[in-house]
Amino acid sequence: MPSYTAPVKDTQFVLQDVLKVTTLDIPGYDELEADFTSAVLEEAGKIASEVTQPLNKIGDEQGCRLENGVVRTPEGFKHAYDMMREGGWPALDVDAEYGGQGMPAVLNLATGEFFSSANMAFQMYFGLTHGAISAINAHGTDAQKQTYLPKMASGDWSGTMNLTEPQCGTDLGLIRTKAEPQDDGTYKITGQKIWISAGEHDLTDNIVHLVLARIPGGPEGIKGISLFIVPKFIVNEDGSLGDRNALSCGGLEEKMGIHGNATCVMNYDGATGYLIGEMHKGMRAMFTMMNEARLLVGMQGYAQASVAYQNALGFAQERLQGRDITGEKNPNGPADPIIVHPDVRRNLLDQKSFVEGARAFALWGATLIDQAHRNGDKEADDLISLLTPVIKGFLTDKGFDATVLAQQTLGGSGFTQEWGLEQFVRDARIAMIYEGTNGIQSLDLVGRKLGLNGGKTVMGFFDLVKTFIKENEDNTALKADFLDPLKAASKDLQAGAMYFMAEGMKNPNNALSGSYDFMHLFGHVCFGLMWARMAKAAQEALDGGASDRDFYEAKLATGRYYMKRQLPATALHLARIQSGADPVMTLDAANF
Amino acid sequence: MPSYTAPVKDTQFVLQDVLKVTTLDIPGYDELEADFTSAVLEEAGKIASEVTQPLNKIGDEQGCRLENGVVRTPEGFKHAYDMMREGGWPALDVDAEYGGQGMPAVLNLATGEFFSSANMAFQMYFGLTHGAISAINAHGTDAQKQTYLPKMASGDWSGTMNLTEPQCGTDLGLIRTKAEPQDDGTYKITGQKIWISAGEHDLTDNIVHLVLARIPGGPEGIKGISLFIVPKFIVNEDGSLGDRNALSCGGLEEKMGIHGNATCVMNYDGATGYLIGEMHKGMRAMFTMMNEARLLVGMQGYAQASVAYQNALGFAQERLQGRDITGEKNPNGPADPIIVHPDVRRNLLDQKSFVEGARAFALWGATLIDQAHRNGDKEADDLISLLTPVIKGFLTDKGFDATVLAQQTLGGSGFTQEWGLEQFVRDARIAMIYEGTNGIQSLDLVGRKLGLNGGKTVMGFFDLVKTFIKENEDNTALKADFLDPLKAASKDLQAGAMYFMAEGMKNPNNALSGSYDFMHLFGHVCFGLMWARMAKAAQEALDGGASDRDFYEAKLATGRYYMKRQLPATALHLARIQSGADPVMTLDAANF
Repeated sequence: MPSYTAPVKDTQFVLQDVLKVTTLDIPGYDELEADFTSAVLEEAGKIASEVTQPLNKIGDEQGCRLENGVVRTPEGFKHAYDMMREGGWPALDVDAEYGGQGMPAVLNLATGEFFSSANMAFQMYFGLTHGAISAINAHGTDAQKQTYLPKMASGDWSGTMNLTEPQCGTDLGLIRTKAEPQDDGTYKITGQKIWISAGEHDLTDNIVHLVLARIPGGPEGIKGISLFIVPKFIVNEDGSLGDRNALSCGGLEEKMGIHGNATCVMNYDGATGYLIGEMHKGMRAMFTMMNEARLLVGMQGYAQASVAYQNALGFAQERLQGRDITGEKNPNGPADPIIVHPDVRRNLLDQKSFVEGARAFALWGATLIDQAHRNGDKEADDLISLLTPVIKGFLTDKGFDATVLAQQTLGGSGFTQEWGLEQFVRDARIAMIYEGTNGIQSLDLVGRKLGLNGGKTVMGFFDLVKTFIKENEDNTALKADFLDPLKAASKDLQAGAMYFMAEGMKNPNNALSGSYDFMHLFGHVCFGLMWARMAKAAQEALDGGASDRDFYEAKLATGRYYMKRQLPATALHLARIQSGADPVMTLDAANF
Repeated sequence: MPSYTAPVKDTQFVLQDVLKVTTLDIPGYDELEADFTSAVLEEAGKIASEVTQPLNKIGDEQGCRLENGVVRTPEGFKHAYDMMREGGWPALDVDAEYGGQGMPAVLNLATGEFFSSANMAFQMYFGLTHGAISAINAHGTDAQKQTYLPKMASGDWSGTMNLTEPQCGTDLGLIRTKAEPQDDGTYKITGQKIWISAGEHDLTDNIVHLVLARIPGGPEGIKGISLFIVPKFIVNEDGSLGDRNALSCGGLEEKMGIHGNATCVMNYDGATGYLIGEMHKGMRAMFTMMNEARLLVGMQGYAQASVAYQNALGFAQERLQGRDITGEKNPNGPADPIIVHPDVRRNLLDQKSFVEGARAFALWGATLIDQAHRNGDKEADDLISLLTPVIKGFLTDKGFDATVLAQQTLGGSGFTQEWGLEQFVRDARIAMIYEGTNGIQSLDLVGRKLGLNGGKTVMGFFDLVKTFIKENEDNTALKADFLDPLKAASKDLQAGAMYFMAEGMKNPNNALSGSYDFMHLFGHVCFGLMWARMAKAAQEALDGGASDRDFYEAKLATGRYYMKRQLPATALHLARIQSGADPVMTLDAANF
């Protein structure tokens, strides 16, 4: 059975030593002192380890069951859900006005990682609600906010996102679900939605569905889509629950992983819906949810990698097999622990350097969100907009790879259900697909985000890297190991962008054929930057006489590993990008 | 539901156009004319598609059940097993002397791919038997061969390999199972073996276990291991089945995939065993099985990728979503098929160029086996010995990756059980682990195979690449697209080997830290060679006025894709190798 211990110290290192959150000029950040964040993180870690992690395997084995229209979640989920609610965790960063804790997004992401590591399928119930809260908060009327947000923030009600239909996932312009206007200002929603996570379950009194649908007579395609609030139970004027709405769960999807989360076919049969945001501008409102969801999905990628790594590491330190080639390390035992073997270490360090780099990258991203929301900082908003597809795509691809590596560390045991590693692989797999497949993320990055503000945003990112290198170029301890490789990687990224500009003009497929590699190239540069920043912070701590020298030395060693063994991948991605459209486009579709 | 069509034409291209099997001077190869191999492949493909593939999902869903010591295989397995037997497929390349068909190994591998694509878990029952046949054939006495081989070749009895115990997998020196000599020359076998594929089932009348055990008083460690034949039912002198032997299945492993194959805990309680091969030389005999099994496992890697690719391709050609950016391709439909999108094509071409490259590589490897066995060619034997860990490690790593890519092609559908792609991923995963994890393969390659004959064998491989390039350097159509990149990749491989020689002397960890990257680097060079050979063959066919021009043009386009977008990975692997031991070894085990 796998176990989980929240990596509070690593998170604190990022928050306090690297990002130095209290020094950032963001409202509310002055509260984020080490004692406070430590207390919050410790408490979240305790619940994750003791309450939700023990349900992870149970959830996987039992899955959800649909009985007479009611979805039963696995044993213990309801109890754990109530404990999470009582602790105020679902609303950590929701406005205090609606009953939330009003904490910054960065703290929500930090604790969310622990909960996701402990039990991804369970945590998704809160994740979906969170996205729905954000959408209603951003686009709802005051009345809508008052009606829904307090109950959702308290966890009494949950939320969902309804986009996909059988004939359309990526291409939402093909949506057919109809929303017919009624005399009372409401709409009758009719259609079928599929793959609706947490679409129906027994954890809350009400479920607030946000549904994309088409108002007849509107523009065709994507420009005629509107967003609706469609609650499972109609909410009376006094806030109490009224009639059951005309919607139902028509089936549960059998899937590779996240069995504890109900993936529903949702049938809307003239259900009462309330327009949220402007008519035909539903995609804009939905993107509020999507962008937030994409960051959280990126986090799921490294959260699964993190728990998988912990368990792989524990195995590698205990499993005795073979001898250290340079001399026995466990002479009194029948063999040495396998962590003595270089190839086992390579495998573990690939995981470790990813998990820690990813955590730093994502938490930095969350500070940009806070900067954007709390300071109205447009530059920060644009930068996180640029980075969102990278966070989602790169972190989930590499996060999945890391779970596979962790599984490999265990050899045959990794393939058995008993050890639980294979569940991390199966659960992590979905993160590469939902909230827009990673291919779509790469198109978003290259097709839309690169051109943001006429390219100024991406230039701003390059400047940020350049400035960091320049500011630290006299730091000889950083230079060869961190700054030089970062500079080389950043040059590769710029060369990739230049290639798109020059050749994409001639033929857009020259850019689109390299989009996926560009996303990965971008991810590596972000990791290079974060590892350089972490190295600097670790070095400062060591220079400052920190007592836990091993911890900071380990950061430096792990960072050096990343720079030496992972970052050089940028050259490969650039070579692929510069090979252009020909290799990809030549073959006729019929001759594949 | 997924489907499968055996890629007979692609296999024929490799056998006839690329390897030109009938021109190879190997006994029996003169029979391998196009008409004959085509008939065999078509027939195998038919059985794979019609008989065993339809059971793939059933096997996954039902799994095996242990009831009162008896293992029940999934519905339909017994019927399909009998059909396979009646067709003579299990013994295609077994000596005619024992009732086999006496065909070359290359044809057995070619058809084995189809059966593995169709139903990997089912096909494993035959694969294990095949390995046991080879071991008995190579190391058994005449009496043992006469007793077991005809019944195993006919499929009446099956076979297994029993290596792993709870405390040892990779490090077989730790084996505890005891074999106590009896007065009648037999041994009493006592101990527990785990993860025994096909250890117990209801498909055959008898199961012939090959068991590694320790004769008391022998040398410690790996040098005191002997191999025993331990049949489920004792075979009487007249060949009839006698008493049930003292062995039993103590449990079935719950695992990530290959549910249709019974993975057994096997308990030996003083079971009667017969020494096979020399006392204390059991590892040598076991390696006969292991080496063959490693090639077959490498094949499983691309076999799963092949069926996954077929289904991903079918989806990409039918799923309508979005529009071709350079102009609509399906103007009368609501959207274009997703194969118009460059990133979907990238994904498909990664799969296609892998599957076809892998097939050529493995079939070439099988001709080396035939060359070694049928001609007693030591050079061929050494070369395939060198290539075996590459075939096993690289083909299963990349094969798994390809199934993940195929799953990704389907977006959300890929995560559902309904479409079946996720099963290919789960089944393919084991191939990276069993028969020696891929990490172990890389150690075998770098630690033992590189030094084979004082390095002459690997030099022979480099010469082979060099000779091919030299022989074709005037071929301008090949030069820039194929020969130049192959030359560059081969140089990277040589540089990696040189690094190991120079730096491994100083510190063996300098070599061991790069072993995994070296295995991948080697794999890419082999693929580069095979794609160059395939390109040459395709070009010759086109120059010769072949009627199916699209087929050969597609080979050239796919090969160019590989050379442009995959082969450059060699530089990254070399960079990692040349980073040496420091990044991997610095961090203290306690500080991970």
